[in-house]
Amino acid sequence: MKPKLEDVAKLAGVSKTTASRVLNNRGYLSDETLKKVHDAMETLNYQPNAAARQLFKRKTGLIGLIFPTVSNPFFGELVNYLEYELYQRDFKVIIGNSLHDINKETDYLNQLLAGQVDGLIVGTHNQGIEEYKYSHLPVVAIDRVVNSDIPIIESDNYKGGVLATQRLINAGVTRIIHTNGPSALETPTQRRREAYEAVMNEYGLEPHTFTIDFSLSFAEKKQRYNELFSIYPDMEALFVSNDVDASIIMTIANERGRKIPEDLLLVGYDGTDLMRNVIPELTTIIQPIENMAKIAVDVLVKRIEGIKTESEYILPVNLWEGKTSSR
Amino acid sequence: MKPKLEDVAKLAGVSKTTASRVLNNRGYLSDETLKKVHDAMETLNYQPNAAARQLFKRKTGLIGLIFPTVSNPFFGELVNYLEYELYQRDFKVIIGNSLHDINKETDYLNQLLAGQVDGLIVGTHNQGIEEYKYSHLPVVAIDRVVNSDIPIIESDNYKGGVLATQRLINAGVTRIIHTNGPSALETPTQRRREAYEAVMNEYGLEPHTFTIDFSLSFAEKKQRYNELFSIYPDMEALFVSNDVDASIIMTIANERGRKIPEDLLLVGYDGTDLMRNVIPELTTIIQPIENMAKIAVDVLVKRIEGIKTESEYILPVNLWEGKTSSR
Repeated sequence: MKPKLEDVAKLAGVSKTTASRVLNNRGYLSDETLKKVHDAMETLNYQPNAAARQLFKRKTGLIGLIFPTVSNPFFGELVNYLEYELYQRDFKVIIGNSLHDINKETDYLNQLLAGQVDGLIVGTHNQGIEEYKYSHLPVVAIDRVVNSDIPIIESDNYKGGVLATQRLINAGVTRIIHTNGPSALETPTQRRREAYEAVMNEYGLEPHTFTIDFSLSFAEKKQRYNELFSIYPDMEALFVSNDVDASIIMTIANERGRKIPEDLLLVGYDGTDLMRNVIPELTTIIQPIENMAKIAVDVLVKRIEGIKTESEYILPVNLWEGKTSSR
Repeated sequence: MKPKLEDVAKLAGVSKTTASRVLNNRGYLSDETLKKVHDAMETLNYQPNAAARQLFKRKTGLIGLIFPTVSNPFFGELVNYLEYELYQRDFKVIIGNSLHDINKETDYLNQLLAGQVDGLIVGTHNQGIEEYKYSHLPVVAIDRVVNSDIPIIESDNYKGGVLATQRLINAGVTRIIHTNGPSALETPTQRRREAYEAVMNEYGLEPHTFTIDFSLSFAEKKQRYNELFSIYPDMEALFVSNDVDASIIMTIANERGRKIPEDLLLVGYDGTDLMRNVIPELTTIIQPIENMAKIAVDVLVKRIEGIKTESEYILPVNLWEGKTSSR
């Protein structure tokens, strides 16, 4: 038998009126009460019916965006498009830069639970935040696996990895190194690594993935990439997980007297408008940032309105020719 | 005699209760009513007394940030720091990217008037928005002249212009071109131009400022900068108003076979963390973005609390050596 609101109230140890107020975000509710009721909904797998669907209808006109930092060009452009799309639908945008800050991400989720925002779009890397277990929340993830109930919007990371690796192999090199984030992070960007390793193996080449944390400072990254040059002194090519890091590698290669593309080939990732104009010579994989933003907003609005959506949206990528991946 | 709330109500044609509700942001108020009351406050130069100061006390915990676009590295880093500083003081941040969109900027101002945010930090270029006339509002401007009542936070643009121009003259060149936004825009960045022209004149050199709109697309900018190369075929050096545009000029120079620094010297502006790492070879003027954000938040919080502030804060700039401004 399907659980009712009474069952939720009973399990949470609150009155039905209080449970209803949580459902409808009415009046003051303590964090403790909110959590107890949401926990009970989760435990019982309570599905609000049509009447209760007003639960997450537009109440505040605010959507929270949680991304590592808008000072990175990929997230800067993504947030720019998301804000544009949401504004067209009469939503205003609250933004939280969550880099290094698991508490902040949790804080924004609690805002959502408390009805202070109508929905969230998250693209952060903090893991293990228990508030995400509330699968009925209007949350959409970009390039990040939160849980199986939260839809994910991503570009075709596997295809991007194939394009980049194949490109370098076609240029006639064999000692190709890949850089990516720690594999413990469950992000779809790990598929770039899987693709790189699969293509390398297919050609009988040995894959080497160099792990580096996205959240390091520029100075720390420079040190790590200098180590990379020392670990693989005879590398012929690099497939780097983002364009900003690729540009740091270009500087280090220059300092070490390794000419690009003569002595070292390079493919980046992301292909933001900014980076394609600042360093157009860098070969890169272009993610369809504008489209990712459009679809994320579409899917979020559907979730707010209680309409079912797909659980995963994979968008096509393209190769930007540049001049760093062939001689 | 100092005007009282009764006088405001009378002039606005509303009851004193309604005027008080506007003052205290209580209950539903139509846009029309809000404007009538705020207009009357402005006309009478009504200064809320200590008791009425709760007018703009923290009510929503939200601050609006209106900037052209976070996809530009300068604004991306600025918004990142502003959000960080505001979060430390328990404010959340609503962001609006106002490039090309005067209505959006007006819309956020009306949100402030309607008490949906506690304050605004603006760094946009849209001019002639009449809502800014309400001088009692908690608004702070960054790098922009709004009106004499709204405090402005800026870096020392005049000094930056002197540093850049002097640097190029010291390198032994005389045909130095400057690029900047339309001089009709009343932004402090015009002081870079004034400094450039003053230094050039001091040395008996002819200043040439090439005007280009910040809001153009990358493709349009490329076209304009190609025109620049055609208009001044014998230029020896460029002092460019921002680093992203300087990087576009580097690409065009390369396409036209003008080697930097051998055939052409270049100084940029802004010196964001990103651009100093992506193209470290570019000589530039570093704006103290983090400090600008800190002071903007300090000043805004004071204004919200009804504490008097300075009307202008000018922060020091630095030269980033790079390799494009000497041979």
